[in-house]
Amino acid sequence: MRAFMDNDFLLTTETARTLFNEYAADCPIIDYHNHLPAKDIYEKRRYENLTQVWLEADHYKWRCMRVCGVDEHYITGKASEYDKFMAFAEIMPRLIGSPVYHWAHLELQRYFGIDTPLTKKTAPEIWHKTSQLLQQDGFDAVSLLEKANVKMLCTTDDPVDDLHWHLKIAATQDLSFKVLPSFRPDRFLNVGQDAWYTAIEQLRNRYDVAINDWDSLLSALRMALDFFYLAGCKVTDHGFTHFRYAEGDASAVMDKAMQSQPLTEEEIAVYQGELLKFLAREYAERGMAMQLHLGPIRNNSPKLMEAFGPDAGGDSMGAVTDPYLLGAFLGGLEAEDALPNTILYNLHPSDSDMLATMAVNFGAKVQYGAAWWLLDHIRGISNQIDQLMETGMLSKSVGMLTDSRSFTSFVRHEYYRRILCEKIGSLVESGQYPCDMEMLGEIVSDICWKNAVEFFGFEI
Amino acid sequence: MRAFMDNDFLLTTETARTLFNEYAADCPIIDYHNHLPAKDIYEKRRYENLTQVWLEADHYKWRCMRVCGVDEHYITGKASEYDKFMAFAEIMPRLIGSPVYHWAHLELQRYFGIDTPLTKKTAPEIWHKTSQLLQQDGFDAVSLLEKANVKMLCTTDDPVDDLHWHLKIAATQDLSFKVLPSFRPDRFLNVGQDAWYTAIEQLRNRYDVAINDWDSLLSALRMALDFFYLAGCKVTDHGFTHFRYAEGDASAVMDKAMQSQPLTEEEIAVYQGELLKFLAREYAERGMAMQLHLGPIRNNSPKLMEAFGPDAGGDSMGAVTDPYLLGAFLGGLEAEDALPNTILYNLHPSDSDMLATMAVNFGAKVQYGAAWWLLDHIRGISNQIDQLMETGMLSKSVGMLTDSRSFTSFVRHEYYRRILCEKIGSLVESGQYPCDMEMLGEIVSDICWKNAVEFFGFEI
Amino acid sequence: MRAFMDNDFLLTTETARTLFNEYAADCPIIDYHNHLPAKDIYEKRRYENLTQVWLEADHYKWRCMRVCGVDEHYITGKASEYDKFMAFAEIMPRLIGSPVYHWAHLELQRYFGIDTPLTKKTAPEIWHKTSQLLQQDGFDAVSLLEKANVKMLCTTDDPVDDLHWHLKIAATQDLSFKVLPSFRPDRFLNVGQDAWYTAIEQLRNRYDVAINDWDSLLSALRMALDFFYLAGCKVTDHGFTHFRYAEGDASAVMDKAMQSQPLTEEEIAVYQGELLKFLAREYAERGMAMQLHLGPIRNNSPKLMEAFGPDAGGDSMGAVTDPYLLGAFLGGLEAEDALPNTILYNLHPSDSDMLATMAVNFGAKVQYGAAWWLLDHIRGISNQIDQLMETGMLSKSVGMLTDSRSFTSFVRHEYYRRILCEKIGSLVESGQYPCDMEMLGEIVSDICWKNAVEFFGFEI
Repeated sequence: MRAFMDNDFLLTTETARTLFNEYAADCPIIDYHNHLPAKDIYEKRRYENLTQVWLEADHYKWRCMRVCGVDEHYITGKASEYDKFMAFAEIMPRLIGSPVYHWAHLELQRYFGIDTPLTKKTAPEIWHKTSQLLQQDGFDAVSLLEKANVKMLCTTDDPVDDLHWHLKIAATQDLSFKVLPSFRPDRFLNVGQDAWYTAIEQLRNRYDVAINDWDSLLSALRMALDFFYLAGCKVTDHGFTHFRYAEGDASAVMDKAMQSQPLTEEEIAVYQGELLKFLAREYAERGMAMQLHLGPIRNNSPKLMEAFGPDAGGDSMGAVTDPYLLGAFLGGLEAEDALPNTILYNLHPSDSDMLATMAVNFGAKVQYGAAWWLLDHIRGISNQIDQLMETGMLSKSVGMLTDSRSFTSFVRHEYYRRILCEKIGSLVESGQYPCDMEMLGEIVSDICWKNAVEFFGFEI
Repeated sequence: MRAFMDNDFLLTTETARTLFNEYAADCPIIDYHNHLPAKDIYEKRRYENLTQVWLEADHYKWRCMRVCGVDEHYITGKASEYDKFMAFAEIMPRLIGSPVYHWAHLELQRYFGIDTPLTKKTAPEIWHKTSQLLQQDGFDAVSLLEKANVKMLCTTDDPVDDLHWHLKIAATQDLSFKVLPSFRPDRFLNVGQDAWYTAIEQLRNRYDVAINDWDSLLSALRMALDFFYLAGCKVTDHGFTHFRYAEGDASAVMDKAMQSQPLTEEEIAVYQGELLKFLAREYAERGMAMQLHLGPIRNNSPKLMEAFGPDAGGDSMGAVTDPYLLGAFLGGLEAEDALPNTILYNLHPSDSDMLATMAVNFGAKVQYGAAWWLLDHIRGISNQIDQLMETGMLSKSVGMLTDSRSFTSFVRHEYYRRILCEKIGSLVESGQYPCDMEMLGEIVSDICWKNAVEFFGFEI
Repeated sequence: MRAFMDNDFLLTTETARTLFNEYAADCPIIDYHNHLPAKDIYEKRRYENLTQVWLEADHYKWRCMRVCGVDEHYITGKASEYDKFMAFAEIMPRLIGSPVYHWAHLELQRYFGIDTPLTKKTAPEIWHKTSQLLQQDGFDAVSLLEKANVKMLCTTDDPVDDLHWHLKIAATQDLSFKVLPSFRPDRFLNVGQDAWYTAIEQLRNRYDVAINDWDSLLSALRMALDFFYLAGCKVTDHGFTHFRYAEGDASAVMDKAMQSQPLTEEEIAVYQGELLKFLAREYAERGMAMQLHLGPIRNNSPKLMEAFGPDAGGDSMGAVTDPYLLGAFLGGLEAEDALPNTILYNLHPSDSDMLATMAVNFGAKVQYGAAWWLLDHIRGISNQIDQLMETGMLSKSVGMLTDSRSFTSFVRHEYYRRILCEKIGSLVESGQYPCDMEMLGEIVSDICWKNAVEFFGFEI
C-alpha cells in the first residue's frame, strides 16, 4: 500500500517519477485561462482563514455539501466562517475519489505544509494552523502565485472593462509574473437577452460612441479589441450553451433586437454566426487566440438561481455540439485565411473525440483543450491525454489551465502534470515507447509550459 | 494466475478483500426495484430444474444463444427443458467476458454449491445435481431470497393492480423480509396507444369510477396512488423510450385521445409532461420516490415481436436524452417545492455523465442510479461508480438493485459489492485516500444498504 | 521496464503470450475490407523507398505532420522523396502514444527487420537500408502480402468498374491468396450530387443500357451485381456521413433528380432508404454481406479540399447515428426475410454501444464491426472487444480488417491480435474465466480468421 498523497502521488513507475521530478515539477506555470480578480492581485489581497480561501465562491465544494444534505445556512448562508469550515470538513471523508478531495489536500500540503487528512476531528487544528499562517507574510494573493511558480496569468474580462487593475499591475515593477486580460464578449453574442442590452449600453458609455446598428457595434468592439490588444491581451474566450452558427443578414437581426422585437432561433444563429466570424477575423489579425467552451446547461436549479444568481452550483452538462456547425465555422475562417489559433473545450464527454479529431483537420491552428470543469478529474484528464495521443498530437498540447477563481487552485497544474507523467511513463515501462529520457523530458516540458508560450505568443 | 471465481473474485488487493469480507458481504439486500411476481413469493414457488430458473424468461440468455446461431426451437420453442439447458450449456464457454457468464456461475456457486464451470461436458451432471437440490427444502422462491439475505423487495406493479398477492404477503407473518409494490404508470403516459385505452378501461373498472376527461383521470390515479400508499408503496417507476416534456393544455389532448383522434408529437409531449408533473407532485406528497429509466429502443426485431411480443430480447440502446427537457421537468418541480426523491437511470452511455452531473444540481433529492440493463457489467458498474466519485457523491449512493425477474439474480448485489470494494480498495492502495478502515467500512455499508433505507424511507 | 516493442509487445501475462504465440500469430489473414488497388497486385508493384510505401497516400501520417507544423511542401508538395521521409522521421518521436507510431515500427520490424526506433538521427540509415531491401526480390506488392500470410483480400470497387485487374488476377495461377472485388455503390446513393450524375452516366456506358428512371436504374444495378457476383464478390460496402432512411416514392425523387430539380432532405431520405433496401435485398439473395460505415464528417478543411480533393486528411468524426432510422431499416429487412449478413461500423464513439447492442437484436445476422479509422488504436480496439464481450458475443466476431491502401498495413492484424490476446489473457489471469487453453485457443483462432470465413462464406 502506498502512503496517502505523498511525493509519489499518482506516480506508480520509476519512469513516471523521474519525468515528474526532473522535468515537470519545476516548470513555470503559464495559466492562460482563469477567473482571478486582477484587483486582488494588485492589492495583494490577504485572507483570514480557509473559509475565505475555499468556500466563498467555490461551487464545486458547495455542490458536494448539498449532496450530503448540509443545510444551505452552512454553504452560502449566514453561518460563521468557522461553522462553514467545520461543515465542509465533516463531509470531506465522504468525497472519496473526487478531485475536490485531492485538490484540497494538495493545497493543504503545498501552501500550508499540512499532511493530515482533513476530517471533522482534525478540522479544528487545521483551522487554527492555517489561520495563523494566513496572517503571516507569504500568504497574500501574490505570494501564493509566486509560491506556485506562476509566470503568466490570463484573466477573463468583459469588452467594456477599463482594465483599471490590469493597467495598474502593468505599471508595477515588483511582480515576478505577468497578468494579461482576456477578451470575453459573451454578453454581446447573446442577442436579445437583458444582458445584451446592458452590454451595448455599457460599451457605448465606455467608448463614448453611438451604437445603434450592426456597423457601429462592430466598430465599438474593434475599439475594445484595440484597447485590449494594447493592454497585452493574447487570449479570448467564449462560452456556448448551444453553439449556433449561420450566415445571413446580421444587420437586420440587430435592427430587430434594437427595436426589442422577438428573434427566431434562426435569426439568433445568424447574428451569433456573423458576430463570431467577425470577432475571429479580428483575433486573427491581432494574433489573439480564440477559446470556445462548449456545452454546459446553466442555472438548472431555479432555487439556487433565485437565491444566488448564476455560478451557484446549479450547472451541469448539457447537449452535445453540432459538428457540422462548428466545422462550417472553422472551415469558413480557414477558407478566408482568417482562422486564429483556436482551442476547443467541451463539457459533455460525447463531444471529446469529435472535437479532438476535428481540431486536427486544421493542422497546428486548432487544438483540443484540457479537460474542463466537470471533466477536470483523473479520468477526464487521462481521457484527454489519450485522445490527443491517439488521434491528435499530445506533444504539441498547450497543457493545463486552472479556469479558477481561487489563488490556491494552481495545484491543478501539479495534478495534471502527475497524471501526464504517469501516462507517459506507463507507455515507456510497457515497451510502447523507447526509454529516451531526453526526448521524453522535452515532450513533458513542452506540454507543461513551452507549447503554451509558443501557441499564444507570450513574452515571458 | 488467480483461481477461477474463488472467494477473492474481482478483489485484487488486501484492502478490497477486507472491505468486502468485513463490511459488504453480510449487509442485508434492499432490492428497491425488481420485477419479481408477488404470487411466486406468496406461493413459495418451487422449480424442477435450471431451465425453469434460468431460461423461462431471461432475454439476456436468449440473446446470447441467438448470436451463437442456436435455433429458436431451443430458446423459446418447444424443445424439452433438458435440451434447452444443454443448448445453453454448450454456448456458455463462448460467453467469455460477459456478465451473464459471471452471474450464472455465481448462482451455481451460491445457491447450489457448484464450483465447476458450466460447459457441454459438465452440463449433464450439473443438471442432475441442481434438479435434485431444487426438489429439496430450501429452494423455493422464499428460501432463495432468504439465502441471499434479502430484507426488502419492491416489485413493479401497474396502477390498476389490486395487489392481491402483496396484501396476502403482508398478512403473512412468516417472512423475514418485506415485499412492497411499486407504482409504474407507463401505460397511462403513452397516450393514444392501444395500451393506453386498455389501461383507462381497466382503471375505470378497478375503481368503479368514470374516466372520460383529464380531471377524472387524475382523480382515478389519485385513488390508485392512495391504495398503493396504504399497501406500503415507497417507490415508483417510469420507462421512457423518448423522454418528452412540454407544458400546455393536457386536458384538450386527453379529449382528442378519448375521441380517438390522432395526436401530434407536441400534443403527446404536453400530455406526458403534464401527467408526469402531476404524478411527481403526488409522489412528493406521499413520500414516494420517482425512478426514471431513460433511453431503450424496444421491439426492434419484428420477428421476435411477432413471435413472442415484448421482452423477447429484441431491445437495445436507443437515443440520448434531451438535457433541456429533463432539466426543465426537474427544475419546474423544484421551483414549486414538489420534487420527490428521484433516481435517474440511462441505457445509452452518452447520457451517463450528463445525468450524473444534472442530478447534483438538485442536491440530495436526485441521484444518478446504478448501471442499468445493458450497462450492468463490470465496466458499466465501474463507470457509474467513477461518475459518482468524480462529479457526484459515491458515499451517498443508494447502490445496487436487481431489476430482475429471477429469484436467483440477487448475486448481482454481490457482483456490484465486489466491484465497489475493489475500486475503493484501489484508491486506498494507491495513496489516493487514507487507510481509515472505519470510515471506509461506513461508506461501504452505507452504499450497500443504509443509504437506500434512508433515501426511500423504508422501515425494516 | 519492458523492452521497446519486442516479441512480447502488448502482452503482459503468460496466458496472453501463449494465446498469441500458439494460437493467433500464425493464423491466416482474411482481410475482408481494404482499399488496395488490384492493379498493383496483378503487376506486382515494386517500391523504391519508404516514402512511396508510407507517404504517398497515408493521410494518417499527413495529419501528424501538419499538427507538428511541417510545411505542406514536405507532405503533399514537391519536396524530394528523401526530404519527405526526413520530415516525417523528424516528427516520429512526437507521435508518442499514437497507433501511427506503433504501426510504422511494426512495419519496420516485420518487413525490413529493423528494430531501431525511427528518429531524425536514425532516419538516413533506415532510408538507406529499406531502399536497398525494396530493390531486392520479396518486396513487391504480392510478396509483402504473402509475407503477412494473407489468404483473402476484398478490395473496394465501384459498381461501374469492369474489374479488369480482378479478372486478370483470377486467371493467374501463381498467387497464394484470393483477391475478390467488393461492391461499393456510394455514388449511386448520393442522389442529386455531381458524382451521382457521373455514376449514372458511367453505369449506362458500362452496361450499354438506358438509365432514365428508377426501374432502369435498379435493373442496371442488378446487372452490375450479377457481374460482381460472377467475379466472386462476397462483400459490399456503404459509407454514410448521415444515415438517412425513409420509405416512399423513390421513383418520383429519381425523376426530379433526372430533371436536375433540387431535392428536399425528405426526398433524399426516401431515395436513399428505398435504394438501400433494394440493394440489401439483392445482397441477401446473392449471399453478399453488407457493411455500413457510419458517421464521418468529410472534407472539413476547405484548404485541403481545394488543394488535393478528398482523402487529404481533412476528415474527422461527425454526428451520431439515429438509432430509430437504422433500426427501422434493419427491422424492415428482417420482417421480409431479406436481411443480409451485416456489419455495422461507427466513427463517433457515442454510437459504439448503441450499434453493438442493436446488432444483437438480429441474432447472428448482424455484427458490430472492428474499431474503424480514427478509433483504430489500442483503446478503441479494446473498447470494441469489451462491447462485444459485455453485450454481444466476442467469440463470434469476424475480427479485424485493414481498411487500408497500403501493402504493409497488415501489421494492423497483428496489433489487433495482440490486444485481443492480452484482454482474453487478463480475464483468465484474474480468475474471470477458467484456464481452458483448448477453448481459449479455439475462440482466438475463430476471431482471427475462421469466423470471417464462415460469416462471409469465403472459400479458401
